[in-house]
Amino acid sequence: MADQSSALIQQIGQQIADARRILIITHVAPDGDAIGSLLALGRLLKAQGKEVTLACEDAVPEIYAWLPGSQDVVRQGKGTCDLVISLDCSDRRRMGRVYGDSLLSLPLLNIDHHVTNTNFGSLNWVDPTSVATAQMVLTLADSLGWALDQDTAVCLLTGLVTDSRSFRTSNVDAASVRAALRLMEAGASLSEVTSRTLEQRPLASVRLWGEAIGALHLEDGILWTTVSREMRRRWNLNGDSFSGLANFLSGVREAQVVVVFTERDDGTVDVGMRSAPGYDVSRIALQLGGGGHPQAAGCTLSGDLKEIERSVLAEVRRGMAEQKLEKT
Amino acid sequence: MADQSSALIQQIGQQIADARRILIITHVAPDGDAIGSLLALGRLLKAQGKEVTLACEDAVPEIYAWLPGSQDVVRQGKGTCDLVISLDCSDRRRMGRVYGDSLLSLPLLNIDHHVTNTNFGSLNWVDPTSVATAQMVLTLADSLGWALDQDTAVCLLTGLVTDSRSFRTSNVDAASVRAALRLMEAGASLSEVTSRTLEQRPLASVRLWGEAIGALHLEDGILWTTVSREMRRRWNLNGDSFSGLANFLSGVREAQVVVVFTERDDGTVDVGMRSAPGYDVSRIALQLGGGGHPQAAGCTLSGDLKEIERSVLAEVRRGMAEQKLEKT
Repeated sequence: MADQSSALIQQIGQQIADARRILIITHVAPDGDAIGSLLALGRLLKAQGKEVTLACEDAVPEIYAWLPGSQDVVRQGKGTCDLVISLDCSDRRRMGRVYGDSLLSLPLLNIDHHVTNTNFGSLNWVDPTSVATAQMVLTLADSLGWALDQDTAVCLLTGLVTDSRSFRTSNVDAASVRAALRLMEAGASLSEVTSRTLEQRPLASVRLWGEAIGALHLEDGILWTTVSREMRRRWNLNGDSFSGLANFLSGVREAQVVVVFTERDDGTVDVGMRSAPGYDVSRIALQLGGGGHPQAAGCTLSGDLKEIERSVLAEVRRGMAEQKLEKT
Repeated sequence: MADQSSALIQQIGQQIADARRILIITHVAPDGDAIGSLLALGRLLKAQGKEVTLACEDAVPEIYAWLPGSQDVVRQGKGTCDLVISLDCSDRRRMGRVYGDSLLSLPLLNIDHHVTNTNFGSLNWVDPTSVATAQMVLTLADSLGWALDQDTAVCLLTGLVTDSRSFRTSNVDAASVRAALRLMEAGASLSEVTSRTLEQRPLASVRLWGEAIGALHLEDGILWTTVSREMRRRWNLNGDSFSGLANFLSGVREAQVVVVFTERDDGTVDVGMRSAPGYDVSRIALQLGGGGHPQAAGCTLSGDLKEIERSVLAEVRRGMAEQKLEKT
């Protein structure tokens, strides 16, 4: 850990020590790292005698409902608090409606690992070298000497495993593996976490993948496909996320950039992007009003599906050409 | 490490110390653990001043050709030797034609992690608690105080990552993760190994997966599909292994057992089986003349594809019923 991080962590520890009631917010459309970090930090702060509220605008996805404490997450903060902590949010909007006007005057701790983070907090700890925000929460706990129980370790391992796709992303290093080992030694089962979060899917979801693979296009190194509302209805997959499909397709050798368009129930379109090292899709996502990591980013757009496809692909082409130019 | 293993390892160390020319054989249709363990042990023994021949009946698959030393693997042992080491072979036949009659009189070290191993060596070290034979080779090196260079670490990490599907199999424990960390600290890049062996596939292979998914059948908890010679020809995938497809399908929630039939060029049919914990497909594979692990096993059969499908599925049903009975 860099000295800078170390000083920041002491400041964070002080702010937490000074607070009595703490609201922790994670991002809309939460993934495993969002939920795992939220539940784990909640447990750690409660053990420090704090009154804690855990909030997320969207419901905990069914795939993470087994995590200890998931039923305590609220969709709208109630009552008052004297400190807000934002987890895994790259910008203020990612906190959604939970971060209402009444909170604006409170200190806001921004803890995140996205390189596109806008430093929107009153105190910002952003560490893109961590593969997951969960890894930062572990660093925080260990640096401040907070004890780690088995349930907390399971939540953190869930964040680490899902964001790194079980140590497959290009940003995985010895520190990530050491963190996993530390969590296993604290009682978390890697095979249980992996099996529940990355391996298991309903057959209908696999059949839909098959259909989406059948509709793949490859052009100029861009590989893309679309999951329409109609396809999801046919396979009765309403709440499902298709980030797994984008990750899977990112392994296609001929693809430099992968784009998966998923039409959501409310008509908005979720755009998931992946790239081979050498291209940075977080910059393209930023242009489109989203954010993320160099190799995995995304945004949510409104409008006609076909029109969104056209404009996103044009932006991807433009971004790739620009990045190629910079390298030469 | 158990005391028994420790004593065995000392015996193995002694046999190696006493030998001058050593032939190391890995199994036919080699996977990442077969090749990784073979190349790593070869390097380690050469560093001990031994004359080493590395042999495998089948060619090193293209996906492992980047591993240091892969070009030194021969398809047929030449010259003489005074010790044979079998790596990752569950029975004598897995060594293929490389283990010819002229070798029968020599001492044979059998180092393997398959629970179905038949202890066919003159000295047998079989450790099913290791996720990969590569993990055993690492234990051997560390126990005997052999130095580990970066290339050897890369080969061993390849074995560990491929056999555990990047730490996703149910037998992964803290010891496996500790071994990976040890190899990373010796200079191996986890993200490079994972990307090259597990993530990257040609688009044609993904398109064929899509087709195989479209042909899935689910009946009584058995999920199966077939990759015919004609499908492989259509996508121009001749040498490819489809173990990735079987692994992927093993995550289908409704499936207790997964079977993927792959018709090979010589007309034989490769039967890959996977199971949810609770069912042991290695026992079913043994009945069919194959072998493997409780959750991942297989066999190769000759005959009419449709007839093989029928008889294997009948054997799977029988095996599942029998194992269910035992549990009650």
